[in-house]
Amino acid sequence: MSSLFRNLLFTAAGLLVTSLAFGKMAQSGSRSPIFGIRLPPNYREWRVISVAHEAGSLNDFRVILGNEVAVKAFRSGRRPFPDGAMIARLAWKYVPSARNDAIFGQTQSFVAGDPINVQVEVKNLGRYAATGGWGYGQFENGSANPSETLIRTCNACHGKLPQSDDFVFTRYAP
Amino acid sequence: MSSLFRNLLFTAAGLLVTSLAFGKMAQSGSRSPIFGIRLPPNYREWRVISVAHEAGSLNDFRVILGNEVAVKAFRSGRRPFPDGAMIARLAWKYVPSARNDAIFGQTQSFVAGDPINVQVEVKNLGRYAATGGWGYGQFENGSANPSETLIRTCNACHGKLPQSDDFVFTRYAP
Repeated sequence: MSSLFRNLLFTAAGLLVTSLAFGKMAQSGSRSPIFGIRLPPNYREWRVISVAHEAGSLNDFRVILGNEVAVKAFRSGRRPFPDGAMIARLAWKYVPSARNDAIFGQTQSFVAGDPINVQVEVKNLGRYAATGGWGYGQFENGSANPSETLIRTCNACHGKLPQSDDFVFTRYAP
Repeated sequence: MSSLFRNLLFTAAGLLVTSLAFGKMAQSGSRSPIFGIRLPPNYREWRVISVAHEAGSLNDFRVILGNEVAVKAFRSGRRPFPDGAMIARLAWKYVPSARNDAIFGQTQSFVAGDPINVQVEVKNLGRYAATGGWGYGQFENGSANPSETLIRTCNACHGKLPQSDDFVFTRYAP
């Protein structure tokens, strides 16, 4: 291989790695359509509100986390949530644990498998007045899902909840 | 009602309230048998490690939380866990949500019901050498369950896990 050709190859490989890295950075800062919501950088440090399992075709395991404003409102029962409240719903595959079942001596144990996505809702009554004061985003591998059709389904479902719950599914699990 | 009798009644009621309050305080500081573990006062603020569902006769929903030391070890993959690592397993009843099912248009939604108990494990290789370096406690309504028979079942089960997992069931869910 000639020295010129090798140098060209290294340069091309370098450009590829650089563009992939920038692509990743751009993605992780991406915003949801319509609502313009970013994935909060520290959401994985938030406190637990509750857990859920959606069976059927979803078949996922969920944990619902809240930022300081949201957790305070959940614990005090304050509704509607104040502006700045943020709720994150993490979902993983719902998978049986053969290892646990072997230890327990029966089929009973289900655990979190691969991550599916993270959904975030942010309260801002002025900005999101048309959707009950909530803006929505869905993130896969840290990137906002760009589908407008998908993001419209958030409020289509949450909007069916009673206003007395401020359109939030989850109740605080003590 | 005579004034003397009324005063006696008030005094008795006051004593009852006082003793109930002290009883509650004593309970919430109570320690598990054998291991002498208290419920950490801030465990509900800890970060999420993962979730689980134990079906069958238990039929509970679980979230596993960790203190700073434990979370750091989970995220870095460090095993065995260093001394000071604490893991809390919260369990609630696993209940269907008729409200959610009505909104989703199908039977699929399970949520956390009433709290059942909290189990805590604390790593201290010197103190708990006989049980793989882990001490255990189970708490109902903040009070340590006083059963020695029960507390012996913790290590009886955890001890069946491979030493490479440091006898911990849960894997970190990203």
